[in-house]
Amino acid sequence: MARMKAAIYVEPGRIVLDDKPIPDVGATDALIRITTTTICGTDIHILKGEYPVTKGLTVGHEPVGVIEKLGAAVRGYSEGQRVIAGAITPSGHSNASLCGCSSQDGPDQQSGFKAAGGWRIGNTIDGAQAEYLLVPDAMANLCPVPGHLTDEQVLMCPDIMSTGFAGAERGDVKIGDVVAVFALGPIGLCAVAGARLMGATTIIGVDTVPSRIAAARRLGADHVVDFSINDPVADIMRLTGGRGVDVAIEALGTQGTFSSALRVLRPGGTLSSLGVYSGDLIIPGDAFTSGLGDNRIVTSLCPGGKERMRRLMDVVASGRVDLAGMVTHRFTLDRIEEAYELFAQQHDGVLKIAITP
Amino acid sequence: MARMKAAIYVEPGRIVLDDKPIPDVGATDALIRITTTTICGTDIHILKGEYPVTKGLTVGHEPVGVIEKLGAAVRGYSEGQRVIAGAITPSGHSNASLCGCSSQDGPDQQSGFKAAGGWRIGNTIDGAQAEYLLVPDAMANLCPVPGHLTDEQVLMCPDIMSTGFAGAERGDVKIGDVVAVFALGPIGLCAVAGARLMGATTIIGVDTVPSRIAAARRLGADHVVDFSINDPVADIMRLTGGRGVDVAIEALGTQGTFSSALRVLRPGGTLSSLGVYSGDLIIPGDAFTSGLGDNRIVTSLCPGGKERMRRLMDVVASGRVDLAGMVTHRFTLDRIEEAYELFAQQHDGVLKIAITP
Amino acid sequence: MARMKAAIYVEPGRIVLDDKPIPDVGATDALIRITTTTICGTDIHILKGEYPVTKGLTVGHEPVGVIEKLGAAVRGYSEGQRVIAGAITPSGHSNASLCGCSSQDGPDQQSGFKAAGGWRIGNTIDGAQAEYLLVPDAMANLCPVPGHLTDEQVLMCPDIMSTGFAGAERGDVKIGDVVAVFALGPIGLCAVAGARLMGATTIIGVDTVPSRIAAARRLGADHVVDFSINDPVADIMRLTGGRGVDVAIEALGTQGTFSSALRVLRPGGTLSSLGVYSGDLIIPGDAFTSGLGDNRIVTSLCPGGKERMRRLMDVVASGRVDLAGMVTHRFTLDRIEEAYELFAQQHDGVLKIAITP
Amino acid sequence: MARMKAAIYVEPGRIVLDDKPIPDVGATDALIRITTTTICGTDIHILKGEYPVTKGLTVGHEPVGVIEKLGAAVRGYSEGQRVIAGAITPSGHSNASLCGCSSQDGPDQQSGFKAAGGWRIGNTIDGAQAEYLLVPDAMANLCPVPGHLTDEQVLMCPDIMSTGFAGAERGDVKIGDVVAVFALGPIGLCAVAGARLMGATTIIGVDTVPSRIAAARRLGADHVVDFSINDPVADIMRLTGGRGVDVAIEALGTQGTFSSALRVLRPGGTLSSLGVYSGDLIIPGDAFTSGLGDNRIVTSLCPGGKERMRRLMDVVASGRVDLAGMVTHRFTLDRIEEAYELFAQQHDGVLKIAITP
Repeated sequence: MARMKAAIYVEPGRIVLDDKPIPDVGATDALIRITTTTICGTDIHILKGEYPVTKGLTVGHEPVGVIEKLGAAVRGYSEGQRVIAGAITPSGHSNASLCGCSSQDGPDQQSGFKAAGGWRIGNTIDGAQAEYLLVPDAMANLCPVPGHLTDEQVLMCPDIMSTGFAGAERGDVKIGDVVAVFALGPIGLCAVAGARLMGATTIIGVDTVPSRIAAARRLGADHVVDFSINDPVADIMRLTGGRGVDVAIEALGTQGTFSSALRVLRPGGTLSSLGVYSGDLIIPGDAFTSGLGDNRIVTSLCPGGKERMRRLMDVVASGRVDLAGMVTHRFTLDRIEEAYELFAQQHDGVLKIAITP
Repeated sequence: MARMKAAIYVEPGRIVLDDKPIPDVGATDALIRITTTTICGTDIHILKGEYPVTKGLTVGHEPVGVIEKLGAAVRGYSEGQRVIAGAITPSGHSNASLCGCSSQDGPDQQSGFKAAGGWRIGNTIDGAQAEYLLVPDAMANLCPVPGHLTDEQVLMCPDIMSTGFAGAERGDVKIGDVVAVFALGPIGLCAVAGARLMGATTIIGVDTVPSRIAAARRLGADHVVDFSINDPVADIMRLTGGRGVDVAIEALGTQGTFSSALRVLRPGGTLSSLGVYSGDLIIPGDAFTSGLGDNRIVTSLCPGGKERMRRLMDVVASGRVDLAGMVTHRFTLDRIEEAYELFAQQHDGVLKIAITP
Repeated sequence: MARMKAAIYVEPGRIVLDDKPIPDVGATDALIRITTTTICGTDIHILKGEYPVTKGLTVGHEPVGVIEKLGAAVRGYSEGQRVIAGAITPSGHSNASLCGCSSQDGPDQQSGFKAAGGWRIGNTIDGAQAEYLLVPDAMANLCPVPGHLTDEQVLMCPDIMSTGFAGAERGDVKIGDVVAVFALGPIGLCAVAGARLMGATTIIGVDTVPSRIAAARRLGADHVVDFSINDPVADIMRLTGGRGVDVAIEALGTQGTFSSALRVLRPGGTLSSLGVYSGDLIIPGDAFTSGLGDNRIVTSLCPGGKERMRRLMDVVASGRVDLAGMVTHRFTLDRIEEAYELFAQQHDGVLKIAITP
Repeated sequence: MARMKAAIYVEPGRIVLDDKPIPDVGATDALIRITTTTICGTDIHILKGEYPVTKGLTVGHEPVGVIEKLGAAVRGYSEGQRVIAGAITPSGHSNASLCGCSSQDGPDQQSGFKAAGGWRIGNTIDGAQAEYLLVPDAMANLCPVPGHLTDEQVLMCPDIMSTGFAGAERGDVKIGDVVAVFALGPIGLCAVAGARLMGATTIIGVDTVPSRIAAARRLGADHVVDFSINDPVADIMRLTGGRGVDVAIEALGTQGTFSSALRVLRPGGTLSSLGVYSGDLIIPGDAFTSGLGDNRIVTSLCPGGKERMRRLMDVVASGRVDLAGMVTHRFTLDRIEEAYELFAQQHDGVLKIAITP
């Protein structure tokens, strides 16, 4: 049985490169030879043991590659085709998928609903930080890459671009809106780009890292509040003439950013939450106007599926949004343990690291 | 090779009961033994040669049955299970399905869009008026029938209930709306029930057949205008105090009903069209206020997929809507040619005919 | 200067009947002679000092009456006309009103946004528990009462019907949804009726008071969980086969009901919150799936304005919803202090008390 | 009684500059001294007698000016303030306004609905091509101009920017959409800008005038089809790989553009119509897939009101869209008859003409 290299979760604190068998291809699967992948903040949660996965699992959920082998029942693709798949791989046939909630596409055919059930690769089945990846329900998930786009140009589509844009989309950003984005990591930066793309006319970012602040300005932020210097709530209320923002996007997953996002909302405004929170979360009474503010709190998991990937690659191809500067570092798969160390420690202004087997 | 009886389109004017092989079951298919099915108005269009299908095709798209055999890749079901499938059988994995437009789910995996592409059984592949039916993409389409519901109770779910309700849903009926429904055949009656279910407070039906008028009143119509006696536009404007209706549902597919539906709309109102039209359709200038009325014209094809079927059977089970009276006649499959004759001529106050193999 | 009797907030624990001048009528105001009004749960919060209002304010925000005098700039009404106005009286001309957020219609013309700014009568200006009420922005707020409807039939429209229905509307209840309603006081009962009106097929109420449970069943609840006997979360998960509910409506304003409402949501489901909360509110980590569940938390203040009132009176007139049983007690204005005592102590199975000057 | 100069409709073919009394200011009105205005394509329809108005009416509905006098009941503004008002001046208090349909805000307080009833200035009451303009319902309509914006920068806000953007907004353009815009006059150009602003990734314009084609490219069109050289339907189907467009915006008001817009729609796509049509309009059978395509036809009248104006001026201030090049010619009010002649004949590459009293 042929074997491949893969980044494997061993125990809290240890993800190591090891080898394991190249998986068999079921009737509706496809085997992808990975050409480029990357490390996500969520992988760091896995590394630290903060997000539980099975020991021995291959990590990673952001694949760019080439179709190596198609399942017997897969039609419409050919081997050798360049493709991506989303971090979330909906089946297409679950009740969740069929009611438009494909990120939550659970494994149970009849009930069809399980929170975050659509996130399979690098979570409940082997992931993309390997030489090969098995993509389940291939016909719902594989999307051909237009020939003129490079691997790095489409590397953000499977997760951070889809997630960040969802912050703006689920927040229902409208032409003329004022949008605040709390935390300008890769997801927050994509939320800035998404809000800009949807017609927000004032975008206010909140962070403190100079490289992130610069990236946010390039992607469309009109103002950036450095929270280490100023109180972001006071600053945003001042910038909006006391009116508050139409949409606040939370892109970190902490109590502080969540509370601030609520506090800057105008009556009727929406908090669009992308963060992954640990433990209980408090809605401060003063920020909630006793529930009388006609506010909404909306959470989103990364939308997946091939149609989503097609649209995001169209955004890249259109030149509307340039995420090229997002890849700040490059490693071969052989050196992925070093890449994890760099990314975990957020050294050297790292935003995203391209990994090539 | 085992054979079965099936109602087959031969040529304009002739649908005959003949026999053909029981189909093979592909990896993602399921073979259903039909226990009850029915004839749709669209089947009459096929019979008359007004809607083109291939000669030799088995007609019918409203299946209730029992799983006879499952494809090798189908999970989550068991042979012997009672199920229905919608008239429209989305694949779940096309681009159309994945962007929430599953009725238009075309056969081409990459472009994924073809008008009415989701309508396959009894249109582009063999249909349900037979002893057995092959359901494609079974995991997206088969929905188990709750044990306490009879075949006849769920027989309206695959098409007319789904289509009629869609008239109200896509028209975005709100609490307190005034809704007019033009033509009270089975689809129009279900549109009345759907509008009632969504909170319309004044529902005005338009027809002339006494049995249909009586059925409409039972299903929630507050007023019925007999168009053979009164001008429906004038009557509806009078009933609404000159205000017009919020939503007008067209459920016949003729120029006359379409024009009247437009003419009774209030500014900002919606024409929700369910009819299948032949040839060009005119938007009368006087009914369209030169395009300045903020009106919408929305068309809908029957929504399908197992989650839709689950919800519609829940409506039946809840007792909110009682469509039991809709089945006015019963025939065995052997006598389906007689059933077609009765239904085509709309004799004997027929609404729907249950066909049992 | 003519004087009138009015229920006046004196200090925490004391609302007394006293007299004050009949107010002057400004250019865009109308003076209404109250014929029937009622006491709201919020008035009890005011009585207890839990919700701050100015000392000397006339309480009450649910007016039914007759136009006594119209402001000089008011057109389209006539003195002597029977009317209601909503608890929330949007100006119609604020930025909030003009962007569809009329409940939040603040007093500041240019910024136009202040949380709950649209709630004026009985909150920031004199209210309806009096012989006369001044309605501001009369042309946006006065709605004529159809002649065949009694005062008591329309008495629920200004607040509890509008608020309760909003719970279902903002929760976006769809045909076939499962809806849970936490707490079955007047608002929760109207939320049950609203969910029923919008096509929910399974409605589960949660309460423990027998009269409320009985009322909920009459208004459309399919199941009622008595939380003093069973764990509502466990019971609801069992009733839904482990699937959870599509929409949970919180109608009390406590941590317990809020947490339970979150816990029974399916992935992708919506918590529609109507309660008025005191202090901080906790989102339990286990109920929020770390923010990955694609859930929404939506809060609503009672929608007002004459078009809303028109629609709600249409619902009453249609007979779709029968709230007649909601008035359990009747007092004259002279005895309103007794009425407050009864209502505050929730004696005698009281739901709503009609007050007639 | 003081008098002013005004452009007055006399009879078909004649709009002349004459003088008439400066109007009296009612309690809720404001009198604006016009500093800049412009001529709309609709004014040309009035000039030609194709759109009926009363003889003697002052034409024009695109005002920029200074508050000269406020009605007695108007609060929140001061005389001398620079303001604009939209072409559509909703009352804010009609039933239409209160149900979110403010463009259709009719004059009848109780029914509150009349098609295009919100268009008053230059239609049913005196308009903006004059030294002074009376703005009704001033508190709903006047919006202060930020100090750093010039008259010409905000001159497109009252009508063409609001209308053109509405084409994209009501078409519900999403990130990644393909949008076609039929006809690239001022409205069509603004529709291109609106589609770009909302995240369309491929925008295809259709026209034949070189200056318009150039302007469209500047505002965000990725492709422009010259219909005098190529068949736009064939070209658009080719450009979209046979898929068709998600949204087609009709910005001319002719049968030809309407039919082509329908023909290029993908299944499930939306035709967003901005044109003002004369007489009947045909929906070609081949373009409508018999009503089975899940398509929508949506019409829009220019959204008005001060909140709309505020948002559009924010778009201008943000620099997201640069419509400065739209003003190609400038005339004083004295020479408005010459301006009409130039604009009616579309000489000299004219897009919009600034008129200054």
